[in-house]
Amino acid sequence: MNQSISHDEVRSANLLRIFNCIRKNEPITKKQIQNATALSWGYVSTACTDLLQQKIICEEKLQTAQSGRTPLSLKINPQEPLIIGLDIEFERLTGVVIDLSSNIYIEESCEIIDKNPNNVIYQMMTITRALFEKTQPNCVKGIAISSPGYVEVSGKGSVWNHLFGDIDTKKLCQIFETRFGVTVLMERDSDCRALAEHLIGCAKDVDDFLFVRLSLGIDMAIMIDEQLYQGKNHAAGELGHMKVNPRGERCHCGNYGCLETFSSVESIVRRCTEAAYAGKAPYLRNQLSIGRQLTLETAAAAARNGDTAVKKVFMKAAHYAGIAIANAVNLFDPQAVVLGGELAEYHDIFVARLQNTVKSHVWTGNIDLRTAQLEEEAAAVGAASLLIVPIFNQLTK
Amino acid sequence: MNQSISHDEVRSANLLRIFNCIRKNEPITKKQIQNATALSWGYVSTACTDLLQQKIICEEKLQTAQSGRTPLSLKINPQEPLIIGLDIEFERLTGVVIDLSSNIYIEESCEIIDKNPNNVIYQMMTITRALFEKTQPNCVKGIAISSPGYVEVSGKGSVWNHLFGDIDTKKLCQIFETRFGVTVLMERDSDCRALAEHLIGCAKDVDDFLFVRLSLGIDMAIMIDEQLYQGKNHAAGELGHMKVNPRGERCHCGNYGCLETFSSVESIVRRCTEAAYAGKAPYLRNQLSIGRQLTLETAAAAARNGDTAVKKVFMKAAHYAGIAIANAVNLFDPQAVVLGGELAEYHDIFVARLQNTVKSHVWTGNIDLRTAQLEEEAAAVGAASLLIVPIFNQLTK
Repeated sequence: MNQSISHDEVRSANLLRIFNCIRKNEPITKKQIQNATALSWGYVSTACTDLLQQKIICEEKLQTAQSGRTPLSLKINPQEPLIIGLDIEFERLTGVVIDLSSNIYIEESCEIIDKNPNNVIYQMMTITRALFEKTQPNCVKGIAISSPGYVEVSGKGSVWNHLFGDIDTKKLCQIFETRFGVTVLMERDSDCRALAEHLIGCAKDVDDFLFVRLSLGIDMAIMIDEQLYQGKNHAAGELGHMKVNPRGERCHCGNYGCLETFSSVESIVRRCTEAAYAGKAPYLRNQLSIGRQLTLETAAAAARNGDTAVKKVFMKAAHYAGIAIANAVNLFDPQAVVLGGELAEYHDIFVARLQNTVKSHVWTGNIDLRTAQLEEEAAAVGAASLLIVPIFNQLTK
Repeated sequence: MNQSISHDEVRSANLLRIFNCIRKNEPITKKQIQNATALSWGYVSTACTDLLQQKIICEEKLQTAQSGRTPLSLKINPQEPLIIGLDIEFERLTGVVIDLSSNIYIEESCEIIDKNPNNVIYQMMTITRALFEKTQPNCVKGIAISSPGYVEVSGKGSVWNHLFGDIDTKKLCQIFETRFGVTVLMERDSDCRALAEHLIGCAKDVDDFLFVRLSLGIDMAIMIDEQLYQGKNHAAGELGHMKVNPRGERCHCGNYGCLETFSSVESIVRRCTEAAYAGKAPYLRNQLSIGRQLTLETAAAAARNGDTAVKKVFMKAAHYAGIAIANAVNLFDPQAVVLGGELAEYHDIFVARLQNTVKSHVWTGNIDLRTAQLEEEAAAVGAASLLIVPIFNQLTK
């Protein structure tokens, strides 16, 4: 039978297969690549020579106790191409430089004090320039931005209005493209974090999982077959607005009883304050009167120091988060659920209860619940990692 | 660069591409196939000759007003290979014979009166034999069974215990394989129905949609990128046990406030009966006293004839179904939601309210809600259609 004309597609797909094989298993020999990919020796050999020439991979002599020729193994070139990842949080800006294997080489961060959009952009530009200056010329091939909240389908706009005020975020990527002359991409932070956990964190062994971020707001990233699933409008994973109690309070979205009204950090802190001022939480009241700020940490301390009303707020929040997660698990039937965000760090007064609720509500009777492993850099690394394959394809076209 | 050794894979994929192109667009000329698939003329031509020889496709002279040579077009061979689809419902067994284009050629059905598992199997065997006898020898290449409830990962077992009692369903497929000597597959009925709606029903134009079956129980099929998504344990789409009200009644699953306790046909009928015997539904009470059976239809008639309490049961059921569907839409962000099952037929007293609730709770503000188009044969056709690609691959190996 004749060869189809989609020979280029086949070549690209096979090349990507080899690249991904090296990424996941480096250092790796050509023989091992051949075994893992089921491609011919000739093909693997020529492809590796090409990738070496393009400096996408490099050679490394394996330490071996055996006699005979030392096998040369291959790994992703740590010097270039590089990708910059930025993460915009409410109060902090983090920037990293990674190689095509998601290894972090440089990390920078600064506080966002003035939340005026122009200032935020200025700080983003400054940190990006600083990262560029720390790398060799022409090595950085792309910039990826992890952004709070909803991101439009094109990936080139984000609604972070309620965080930073009115800003034409559609133009943001263009500003960066024009200024730095490389590919720019923007993605929702929970998606970036989920990808980072999959690549270098606690979810390396699972291809289908949910990543739930329990933070100021609550959202969920969905990984299906190693790919982020984002839905028709890029709006999948809206767990924070799952209605978990029809008699619940009014949510900022206009509906009643959304998960966020019970379990977001914002709601927990608000409910705890109410308890303190209603005279039901003496420890917390005292903390406030000696000038402590009402943060999640102060509230947690109150719950641990005998403020029953405050503890109840945490328990209720954990219970409803558990119900929402169980509802999601019953729909997706994933291999695992990863809990991220500040709340995931409070095991005694939050996660333990959440786990119990999830387990008693999951239809199949069991679910692998994990805690996110990565720290502040997760979103920036995940964002940058989203550009690895596009940049690889661009370089090998 | 050398050719990879996965040449067979490429050939299979391209052949399947041509086959799927014919299936979706028949009748179609070779030239049109070439345009649609971007494969070379030589490849398309040789592949079509092969498929003609194997009798998978056949030729048809196009009616044309133009002068010159009449272009020969191709379509799926309606005579063979054929697939049998069976659907086991609570009270009815349906069997169909379809070609590789999901066209129905023969349809048989019978009532299941004796629900003893051995009898059900006997009836299934009888209907299958009858369908075999109506086809030419060796034309039927597979049997697919749509089964109520949960199906295990292998596809070779199903928990329909609570419908038909204790039966070793894992062996069921083997019995059929041994008896009829063809490939046998079993699948969850909502998945089969969803696929049928996608192939020949109301969801032909969407690749990502949710199919919600509002029936005796409630479940959901998930179509992502034209593929059924079934999760790690084949248990995805458990919408019926989404907790929609923490203060709800106890469900047969052991938890409280599951959607099924409000909105399944079983719950609606039970709640209406309670209203009738509590003296709150005079019309329904009267219907029962004149010997009418308490079915969904009788209850619906009561709601339409002034029984306010009965109408409230329907409204509440619709409202909670709407909340659960909106919660699911907020997680999946699909292109459309298809409503199936008996309840989807009651627009005035159920679907209208459900639609309102869904629309007011969907985060993106809009969702395309549709009603399933296919009748009783849907599940059998969908089941059989699941075997089309496996059987095509088997025949062209």
